Amino acid sequence: MRNKVASFLDQTWVGNFIVGVILFNAVLLGMETSDRVMETAGPMILALDSLCLIIFVVEIALKLFAHGWRFFRSGWNLFDFFIVGIALVPATQGFSVLRALRILRVLRVVSATPRLRRVVEGFITALPGMGSVFLLMALIFYIGAVMATKLFGDAFPEWFGDLGRSAYSLFQIMTLESWSMGIVRPVMEVFPWAWAFFVPFIMVTTFAVVNLLVGLIVNSMQDAHAEESNEKTDAYRDQVLARLEAIERRLDQR
Amino acid sequence: MRNKVASFLDQTWVGNFIVGVILFNAVLLGMETSDRVMETAGPMILALDSLCLIIFVVEIALKLFAHGWRFFRSGWNLFDFFIVGIALVPATQGFSVLRALRILRVLRVVSATPRLRRVVEGFITALPGMGSVFLLMALIFYIGAVMATKLFGDAFPEWFGDLGRSAYSLFQIMTLESWSMGIVRPVMEVFPWAWAFFVPFIMVTTFAVVNLLVGLIVNSMQDAHAEESNEKTDAYRDQVLARLEAIERRLDQR
Amino acid sequence: MRNKVASFLDQTWVGNFIVGVILFNAVLLGMETSDRVMETAGPMILALDSLCLIIFVVEIALKLFAHGWRFFRSGWNLFDFFIVGIALVPATQGFSVLRALRILRVLRVVSATPRLRRVVEGFITALPGMGSVFLLMALIFYIGAVMATKLFGDAFPEWFGDLGRSAYSLFQIMTLESWSMGIVRPVMEVFPWAWAFFVPFIMVTTFAVVNLLVGLIVNSMQDAHAEESNEKTDAYRDQVLARLEAIERRLDQR
Amino acid sequence: MRNKVASFLDQTWVGNFIVGVILFNAVLLGMETSDRVMETAGPMILALDSLCLIIFVVEIALKLFAHGWRFFRSGWNLFDFFIVGIALVPATQGFSVLRALRILRVLRVVSATPRLRRVVEGFITALPGMGSVFLLMALIFYIGAVMATKLFGDAFPEWFGDLGRSAYSLFQIMTLESWSMGIVRPVMEVFPWAWAFFVPFIMVTTFAVVNLLVGLIVNSMQDAHAEESNEKTDAYRDQVLARLEAIERRLDQR
Repeated sequence: MRNKVASFLDQTWVGNFIVGVILFNAVLLGMETSDRVMETAGPMILALDSLCLIIFVVEIALKLFAHGWRFFRSGWNLFDFFIVGIALVPATQGFSVLRALRILRVLRVVSATPRLRRVVEGFITALPGMGSVFLLMALIFYIGAVMATKLFGDAFPEWFGDLGRSAYSLFQIMTLESWSMGIVRPVMEVFPWAWAFFVPFIMVTTFAVVNLLVGLIVNSMQDAHAEESNEKTDAYRDQVLARLEAIERRLDQR
Repeated sequence: MRNKVASFLDQTWVGNFIVGVILFNAVLLGMETSDRVMETAGPMILALDSLCLIIFVVEIALKLFAHGWRFFRSGWNLFDFFIVGIALVPATQGFSVLRALRILRVLRVVSATPRLRRVVEGFITALPGMGSVFLLMALIFYIGAVMATKLFGDAFPEWFGDLGRSAYSLFQIMTLESWSMGIVRPVMEVFPWAWAFFVPFIMVTTFAVVNLLVGLIVNSMQDAHAEESNEKTDAYRDQVLARLEAIERRLDQR
Repeated sequence: MRNKVASFLDQTWVGNFIVGVILFNAVLLGMETSDRVMETAGPMILALDSLCLIIFVVEIALKLFAHGWRFFRSGWNLFDFFIVGIALVPATQGFSVLRALRILRVLRVVSATPRLRRVVEGFITALPGMGSVFLLMALIFYIGAVMATKLFGDAFPEWFGDLGRSAYSLFQIMTLESWSMGIVRPVMEVFPWAWAFFVPFIMVTTFAVVNLLVGLIVNSMQDAHAEESNEKTDAYRDQVLARLEAIERRLDQR
Repeated sequence: MRNKVASFLDQTWVGNFIVGVILFNAVLLGMETSDRVMETAGPMILALDSLCLIIFVVEIALKLFAHGWRFFRSGWNLFDFFIVGIALVPATQGFSVLRALRILRVLRVVSATPRLRRVVEGFITALPGMGSVFLLMALIFYIGAVMATKLFGDAFPEWFGDLGRSAYSLFQIMTLESWSMGIVRPVMEVFPWAWAFFVPFIMVTTFAVVNLLVGLIVNSMQDAHAEESNEKTDAYRDQVLARLEAIERRLDQR
């Protein structure tokens, strides 16, 4: 029975049907944002939305039945499970936020199409290699936020009033958005030496971001290079060594 | 007759003449933007502009006659056909827009010079390799636009009033233009947790853009690397294998 | 005695303990930024902070005792020494700045964990290769600052009043922050040809920054490439040459 | 006599002396920007500045005497000649601009130090490879400027009043500075479809800039790769082929 359900779910038309339902649901959720559309066809859209949700719940229930606890071993299954689960939580508190999160269901199109899945897996496998630099940047942000709060917190509570605000402002400064005209020039009117904090901060964080980028490029390159050249080169090298061995063997035989 | 026309069009001086007419037309269209120039020499400029257009129409008519329906098989020919065609549409409605589109004729200089053609073809062949990442970004934008419209649409109709406005605002935020001072800080005054939507959005889209860039670099590199090294290396390898075979053969003969 | 102390400090649990104290101290310094926390638990936090400082001083004193003057040969030891030393300077003048600098102590986590140490060492070894480009950019900034001060200093003392202000404004312009709407458009209202100074400045500095990035990528790539391919390739090449030699030797023997 | 002068100029201490004079002159020109310094030591600074200029003129006169007309064959010599020449033009009209241009003399430090010279030569040799993309971008800018002037020129004369203003505004938009909040949102209030012009413009120009960057990286990489690997690989390959030949020869002899 379990195997039957599993092989039913593995059929390509079932996968395509689910992708179709996801995309149809995406369109429905997009239409829900328009007041005019909701006035004329609101009940129908909500009904179709519920139908999509039921299809997703049934699909996941079937998968759970087919694979048992092994279902939860795959990260993508967990991802589907939580994303569909969000829609089932009764939206009493934090009403609008939970309703807005329902659009995350459209992300299931990633787990349902192997091509997008591979791209996202590529992104995720790139992350650990950047772990040390991320740790270093977190450190720089924490130190920067504590310093900014202590130095400028009293004079500019809006931007540097507590650690959270400072971290947000420093993130803005790292993205170079209005860092000078918006933040540093006003701060320099009170603390003329403030540039000595912000300019090095920009240089260090930019340099760290650049190093992340360089690391990503070098890693992707090595992977691509290794894959590409090794097959052909290895075949050639094996052939050369085999031939050399054959020559030696013949010389031995005589 | 057809062959005669085709060989006439293939002569280099004809190509150079057409490029010359395009550039002359570009200068004319540039002069049309100046009111002062139009007051003194308006009729002459418009007459010369019409002359250029007639030359283009004749050229394309000759090409159509020479190549027949095969003319439409080349993307560049289709490009020329539509760009010249725009100027022939009678400009009754959407007057100013259609007149402004006439400058697109200058783009014919790309299809008429092989060097620029190759650059653009290089750009276009790079696009399919980025297809998956583009699809993913479109998905992120759609989800982001729906969420932003639902969450912030009522409070900030100017920026997030409907899906189109939200998508435009999110594009602006992705380019990091005034994202904090212009958009997110005002939004955070109403929804203090709004950073939890926008900061991850910036990180994810920036990371996706960076991955596009890395993909482009790796692809260009592999192409360049493959071209460069293979010829010489392949010649060497063939030589080594041939010599080893020859040695084996001689050892066998004895 | 010295060796005993040195081997005591080299134990992994001592290193981990120090990292733990640094992180605990980081949390304490973060809590000090909150007025509410300081009101309720201020004395305890300050006491714990002093305890952390004492631990650091004892650790460095033990290291100094164990290694003698060789202690100062390592850049990381000097780094630790000065960072801890800052906290011991009596904060009479420049009170708030010195107190804010105490958070730099958290940077000791870099010198105490080998993984972060290697990342920072990687950053630092990348710097000398960029020395010439940095020198060139310093030159461009100096020339740009002198020119901007002479040309626009009288009309816009706020932005270009002296060399320092000009250099800061040019740094802002190089980061492309509000360069046009904030600085160049207002300047162009007084000096209409001002774009002829600022647009080339942006192009030249951006091109120099891009070249820094390209240099970084090429260097990292070469290092990675050299490491990866040489071991395997060298082994193969040695094998081929050894075999060819062996074949020749056998042919000679007969 | 000519050879004597040439060998005198080639001595390292003469080169170092000239670099010293350039740097001393740079400091003098920097001091000239400060009103306070000029009040107390103005005449002395101007006298020393004239002395530096005399030294430069004498150096170039000697070089001209030593090398004759061949002097003008080197781009760097021409560069020195014009930069020193600027200071000799009597500053009657365009007074402040010509005085400001005198600081360009400091750029002679580039032509006088081989290390910086090589960096700049590296920059310049990278330019021709990017020629086609530059041509394409010039084309896009020209077309964009004509279209923007025709479409938005009447409503926004400040930004798109003529071709020059439009080109400047489009350059600002390409650098992403205030493109949305500063320019496109105001334009969209009059022409709601204006995003359909600006968003593709941003995408196309950004993509072209990215391709410039990718081209630069790939070129630098190939140069670095070719240099590094070829020497060692070529030596190995020559050795393998020589040995194979030797084996064949021995087999022939018998």
